[in-house]
Amino acid sequence: MNDRIRRQLQFIIEIDKVKKIIRQTSLFDGSRRENDAEHAWHLAVMAMVLEEHANEKIDVGRVIRMVLVHDLVEIDAGDVPVYETQKRTENEKNEREAAKRIFGLLPPDQASELIELWEEFEGKRTPEAKFAAALDRMEPVMQNFMTKGRVWEKFDVNAGTVTNVNRHIGDGSKELWSYVEGIIKESVEKGFLKA
Amino acid sequence: MNDRIRRQLQFIIEIDKVKKIIRQTSLFDGSRRENDAEHAWHLAVMAMVLEEHANEKIDVGRVIRMVLVHDLVEIDAGDVPVYETQKRTENEKNEREAAKRIFGLLPPDQASELIELWEEFEGKRTPEAKFAAALDRMEPVMQNFMTKGRVWEKFDVNAGTVTNVNRHIGDGSKELWSYVEGIIKESVEKGFLKA
Repeated sequence: MNDRIRRQLQFIIEIDKVKKIIRQTSLFDGSRRENDAEHAWHLAVMAMVLEEHANEKIDVGRVIRMVLVHDLVEIDAGDVPVYETQKRTENEKNEREAAKRIFGLLPPDQASELIELWEEFEGKRTPEAKFAAALDRMEPVMQNFMTKGRVWEKFDVNAGTVTNVNRHIGDGSKELWSYVEGIIKESVEKGFLKA
Repeated sequence: MNDRIRRQLQFIIEIDKVKKIIRQTSLFDGSRRENDAEHAWHLAVMAMVLEEHANEKIDVGRVIRMVLVHDLVEIDAGDVPVYETQKRTENEKNEREAAKRIFGLLPPDQASELIELWEEFEGKRTPEAKFAAALDRMEPVMQNFMTKGRVWEKFDVNAGTVTNVNRHIGDGSKELWSYVEGIIKESVEKGFLKA
């Protein structure tokens, strides 16, 4: 077996660990918390079916690739809840090192390509990254609504905080943000979220 | 909210159930069995990094979309082990009905598109479907090797059966099949699989 395929397979085996990185949010039926692999899969299918709602013309294939690998750094750096903003900033260095190590298992050309893709996602500047980030925030809001505000209650947040943390959904898709604003409003009315 | 986005969101919520469809194979560390969402995610990333090994020129974006949705029918039809060939044939009708119901939650144009994509995967005739099928078989062989033949032992299969069930990997990628043949050989040598 040549070195190139050996490195690719080593990467494929290593990333299995992301199936054990447990997020705060739960499956829609509330039965258990979701892991990063499931989350990435869900975002990728969301990209496939929600593409038409992006504000700008996007290369949806690139969005799909982006969301598929966006959380691999958490194998080393862990999942920091979105409401722990201080810890999230502190964790950025760990995530950059994780990207280097994990994508670095691949042959150099593929490693560079995926590190670039991950950095593009983190930068939230291109139309593709903005849309990917919108999906990445939209899934948890839906999960929280379906589980009657489980994570919102745990972190003791109110509608103002949830709105601020998720507002950038509108940078990727005004239509999806308008839907998410509707969920936040309904969650307050139903008592899942403090006003 | 218009009917189109309402249908898309209903689909996105429905497919969450695939995270509860448990496969025979285990995570690479053997700690628990894998579910269909994790499996689909893994195949999609494998497609991203192994594309160059396809026998024919492929549209890898189409392969990725194919593997992301290929097991959604199991929400209704369940996962039938690859070594239960009789049951698999009997289950084909259930899978077709499941595809109609589940993809049918989407707006009609998207429903048709995804049913077509799923049928293409099942048909194993296009270069994309052959490569997707190769990945779909390669992951379990790797998982079985890493867990010292757990599923092979459970179904009491030998190297001949494993070779026959997986041989079509070569239709998608001769290089990957050559690697998988190596795994099968090594598994026999190590006592994970009967000769």
